[in-house]
Amino acid sequence: MRALAVLAHPEKKSFNSQMKDVAVETLSKAGYTVDVSDLYAMGFDPVEGPRHYPKRVDGSWFDTQAEQRAAWNDKALPSAVQAEIDKVAAADFVFIQYPMWWFGSPAILKGWIDRVFVYGLYTSTQRYNHGPWKGKKAMLSITTGAPETTHGPDGRNADADLLLWPMHYTLYYIGFDVLPPFVACGVEGGLKYSSPEAIAARLNGHKDRLATTLRGLDGIRPLRFNAIEEFDQSGRLKSDSTSHSPFIRHRD
Amino acid sequence: MRALAVLAHPEKKSFNSQMKDVAVETLSKAGYTVDVSDLYAMGFDPVEGPRHYPKRVDGSWFDTQAEQRAAWNDKALPSAVQAEIDKVAAADFVFIQYPMWWFGSPAILKGWIDRVFVYGLYTSTQRYNHGPWKGKKAMLSITTGAPETTHGPDGRNADADLLLWPMHYTLYYIGFDVLPPFVACGVEGGLKYSSPEAIAARLNGHKDRLATTLRGLDGIRPLRFNAIEEFDQSGRLKSDSTSHSPFIRHRD
Repeated sequence: MRALAVLAHPEKKSFNSQMKDVAVETLSKAGYTVDVSDLYAMGFDPVEGPRHYPKRVDGSWFDTQAEQRAAWNDKALPSAVQAEIDKVAAADFVFIQYPMWWFGSPAILKGWIDRVFVYGLYTSTQRYNHGPWKGKKAMLSITTGAPETTHGPDGRNADADLLLWPMHYTLYYIGFDVLPPFVACGVEGGLKYSSPEAIAARLNGHKDRLATTLRGLDGIRPLRFNAIEEFDQSGRLKSDSTSHSPFIRHRD
Repeated sequence: MRALAVLAHPEKKSFNSQMKDVAVETLSKAGYTVDVSDLYAMGFDPVEGPRHYPKRVDGSWFDTQAEQRAAWNDKALPSAVQAEIDKVAAADFVFIQYPMWWFGSPAILKGWIDRVFVYGLYTSTQRYNHGPWKGKKAMLSITTGAPETTHGPDGRNADADLLLWPMHYTLYYIGFDVLPPFVACGVEGGLKYSSPEAIAARLNGHKDRLATTLRGLDGIRPLRFNAIEEFDQSGRLKSDSTSHSPFIRHRD
């Protein structure tokens, strides 16, 4: 079994980096061979654009999907992108660790998706439950500075599941079985609001919980999403389909 | 009156760029002086990290918020970041144009927020309805390739309002009055699924609708969010507060 751990944090010693280490260690002990994509350490360029496509379908007008598809078909993707695709292709499980920045991922991770989830690899007939990475599992593991109570459905920072929906749906779109996220709240950085002891206890608790979660990886049920066949020609959920998500629902 | 138009698209001739032009032209005619931040043209670096902080609070451990706050306090932010803060500070209205990529913004725009919305400018007492950019208006104007029917609450691509929530809440968090988004669906790039005539009619329709919307800017009511005072000490909506958003609600 093979896994890929993706990390998006600028500090090597950070708690996010430590959580990546916990994942690597736990998965290795469970028999996985683990690749790591430490995006900051790799200097991954998150900006999709013309500079990555020396050979162009249309040199006068840069269309991202058209250039991605042509480069995919010609096996002419940038080497940094092809390397990431190869790592994902080899993995049974993709673990993605990042801090919540402005209710989303750091730009470097968003750009990893913009560039690595290339058009051509997925197409209009190969997506959702027919996506190219079908059969692989993915899990987001995030940290937030705010306390857990602020991330409930009635929380000042909004429900974590809601904030993660765009990323979860992206993973589903390309075919992954998306596992429930691992959310570590109250992770303070250089700004310390709690005592050192309280912080250490909280962080160690998160690490233990992550290790326990990953040791039970095989038994985790993926989040449910609706299959593409449950939507009609206009892309609306069919009246006789049951919604599997609070975020895509029949109109009242 | 002053406005700032932010554009995140790699192609100068793109429909997104044309929409930015429509906004600049319409706002100029209405008497605004309009600054433009064309992030791709500027080569804006979206990756927040140590390389932007030659003078560090803690050289042994990079903590984003701590470094941002110190650089803000010392007026030592990177010049590319300070320039953007100055543009926003001078603006009464910020218009943000981008294509929906993977249910979110292109990485270059996410990184503009990661780097420009610095800690120090906002603080734990200056955020939400007390945010530093209170009194300014902001509007997202996005394009999607998919048809509008797929972006409803029962749509295969999920509700546009839901997908935009993290960005909208970010804008509210830092104080903006967030106007309803302008959503242009069915915007095809190099991959043409409709006839040239049908595409042209659709795109021209979007432009006309945007111009009309912006001509009526003064009369647009902002989205409503709950004030910070409506949440209790633990960050949960108080029982006697009315929710103003479908995305932060009392628990059932």
